[in-house]
Amino acid sequence: MGKIASVSVNLFDVPLAEVLTDAKHGDHTHFELVTATVRLEDGSEGTGYTYTGGKGGRSIAAMIEHDLASFLTGEEADNVESLYDAMQWHVHYVARGGIASFAISAVDIALWDLRCKSLGKPLWQIAGGHSNRCRAYAGGIDLNFPLPKLLASIQEYLDQGFNGVKIKIGQPTLEEDVARVEAVRNLIGPDITFMVDANYSMSVEQAITAARAFEPYNLTWFEEPTIPDDYKGFGRIATNSNIPLAMGENLHTIHEFEYAVADASLGYLQPDASNCGGVTGWLQVAKLSRDHNLPICSHGMQELHVSLVSAQENAGWIEVHSFPIDQYTTRPLHVENHLAVAPDDPGIGVTFDWNKLRQAHEEMHS
Amino acid sequence: MGKIASVSVNLFDVPLAEVLTDAKHGDHTHFELVTATVRLEDGSEGTGYTYTGGKGGRSIAAMIEHDLASFLTGEEADNVESLYDAMQWHVHYVARGGIASFAISAVDIALWDLRCKSLGKPLWQIAGGHSNRCRAYAGGIDLNFPLPKLLASIQEYLDQGFNGVKIKIGQPTLEEDVARVEAVRNLIGPDITFMVDANYSMSVEQAITAARAFEPYNLTWFEEPTIPDDYKGFGRIATNSNIPLAMGENLHTIHEFEYAVADASLGYLQPDASNCGGVTGWLQVAKLSRDHNLPICSHGMQELHVSLVSAQENAGWIEVHSFPIDQYTTRPLHVENHLAVAPDDPGIGVTFDWNKLRQAHEEMHS
Ligand SMILES: [Mg+2]
Ligand SMILES: [Mg+2]
Repeated sequence: MGKIASVSVNLFDVPLAEVLTDAKHGDHTHFELVTATVRLEDGSEGTGYTYTGGKGGRSIAAMIEHDLASFLTGEEADNVESLYDAMQWHVHYVARGGIASFAISAVDIALWDLRCKSLGKPLWQIAGGHSNRCRAYAGGIDLNFPLPKLLASIQEYLDQGFNGVKIKIGQPTLEEDVARVEAVRNLIGPDITFMVDANYSMSVEQAITAARAFEPYNLTWFEEPTIPDDYKGFGRIATNSNIPLAMGENLHTIHEFEYAVADASLGYLQPDASNCGGVTGWLQVAKLSRDHNLPICSHGMQELHVSLVSAQENAGWIEVHSFPIDQYTTRPLHVENHLAVAPDDPGIGVTFDWNKLRQAHEEMHS
Repeated sequence: MGKIASVSVNLFDVPLAEVLTDAKHGDHTHFELVTATVRLEDGSEGTGYTYTGGKGGRSIAAMIEHDLASFLTGEEADNVESLYDAMQWHVHYVARGGIASFAISAVDIALWDLRCKSLGKPLWQIAGGHSNRCRAYAGGIDLNFPLPKLLASIQEYLDQGFNGVKIKIGQPTLEEDVARVEAVRNLIGPDITFMVDANYSMSVEQAITAARAFEPYNLTWFEEPTIPDDYKGFGRIATNSNIPLAMGENLHTIHEFEYAVADASLGYLQPDASNCGGVTGWLQVAKLSRDHNLPICSHGMQELHVSLVSAQENAGWIEVHSFPIDQYTTRPLHVENHLAVAPDDPGIGVTFDWNKLRQAHEEMHS
């Protein structure tokens, strides 16, 4: 493909239509989108990106601009995997996860965009090729929604063509959570896939009690019942209840995923390519999931993960996240017969509508 | 103490007198010093700081400036521990270690500076009070030094009054490492404390072989033989050899330290307050070390750790690091009868020579 001439960064604050709340991150008023564009000496370009819940975006942008851009300039863009390793070691002392994982992810995705474009193929073909479509569920950030509003939002997901839904839990009492779970199951009937997400608001003991209370409602998984750092605590919850556990959005290195697989007794892995090392990091986790017979799912940025998850033989579900990044691209997520369909354009299939992003950012700051 | 009026940030690139090399971070030409100054409404000020091996400083500064400063403004400075927890949750989605740990560390140290000043006491009295002096060793970043230069640097440490030394290992062959270890032990004699540091350049198997080869030389510890993420790998090394293992400089959350204590069979913990959560985070690790009967040591910034380590009843050694931050303060590290002596001034006892820092930064960029 040729040598890297430059890496440039953009940051957008994108307001949400309404304030969204979960158990541990509080109110979300906007998300931050950080894009990295890698330009080769021949003028060709690839764009990658990462996002946050509203904090850390400037820090990510600073690392790409000050620590990664000059390091990459002059390197062969073809060497995606060795550049990935080199970036990890370059910033290792301040990394092993955190901001560095987000920064490296954005750059790595840009390199994959270039790779797929130079091959003239869509990402789903290069990243595994199993299929161009996968199951999808709508993930609400709805902890603050009163029950009628919660049920209306679920109905809206069904009307949009989804046959899977996820709600936030972590109400002041378990009784309230159970009542919401029961009401949702009653609304959707027995055939719709249904998950819950506690955003680690529970202790191990509380999570065991909650998992047992949820048993009548046929949940596909219980996401992040307790802090992601407590792999062995996850293991104790799994041993003492019957609902499969899921996590991944807060694991940022392959080593953390290895620990999770070894100790946390997970039923599903949910890596997010925006914070676990881009496409390269995500595919490492996908390999880990195959080796352990776990379905591979995803967190956030549905417009990219549709290609990555579809491509895997052990595909689970993509999450269709409440941060609508796909609405700021030229191809919002496409759902057909309940399945999300990967783009067929060469590249990662995510082309930003820069004007719309700029307008959103200005609206936020006006 | 009153409410926080502002948090301001400074960044300095400080050149090293010569290029220093270790096994995994390559050449160091300079270090980055990021300072955070917290000013209260009554005009009183505290200053904290963190440092890097030359990458990530701008990212740390951006997080303090854009994510932490406004979050802290208006808060009661007295609530150091609850502000620590609040900062961790505020940036949690992009944190769990990495850059966020460095940023929070700098701010937390500033809050401790204010706390100690308002109490009119030095840090060592407030952070434990066991003693105002502790053992210290000189830690070389000397992998690239030819043997004569290595031995000359060791002799210099002894001449400066240190009775403990550490060298880098990770030469192309184990024979070369063993030859250097033997030569150093021959130079220093049997009574000087002697450690080695591999900066995780070895596989678990290589580290076991190396640890056995080092046995004749009475090493106090073998630091970071393999990647810090591989706690269980550390455990296998410890089980299959006789030299105590040490790590900490790359662990950035209390959860990582808990995993290390549970699985890595460490003999010594080496937290660095600049990257494990400041004084608050460091004291959490010190408590963990007491609970597990492990001596508490430190990595880097000797001018601060002398107070923290001295204050603990289970004090091990401070590392006197080759990044001479203390030379840019009004009180470079003080060594008396081989012991490092903590400052008695109210506050953390680290007052920067801002002119000297500015000159160093300008020299680096001229
Ligand atoms: Mg979630
Ligand atoms: Mg070390």
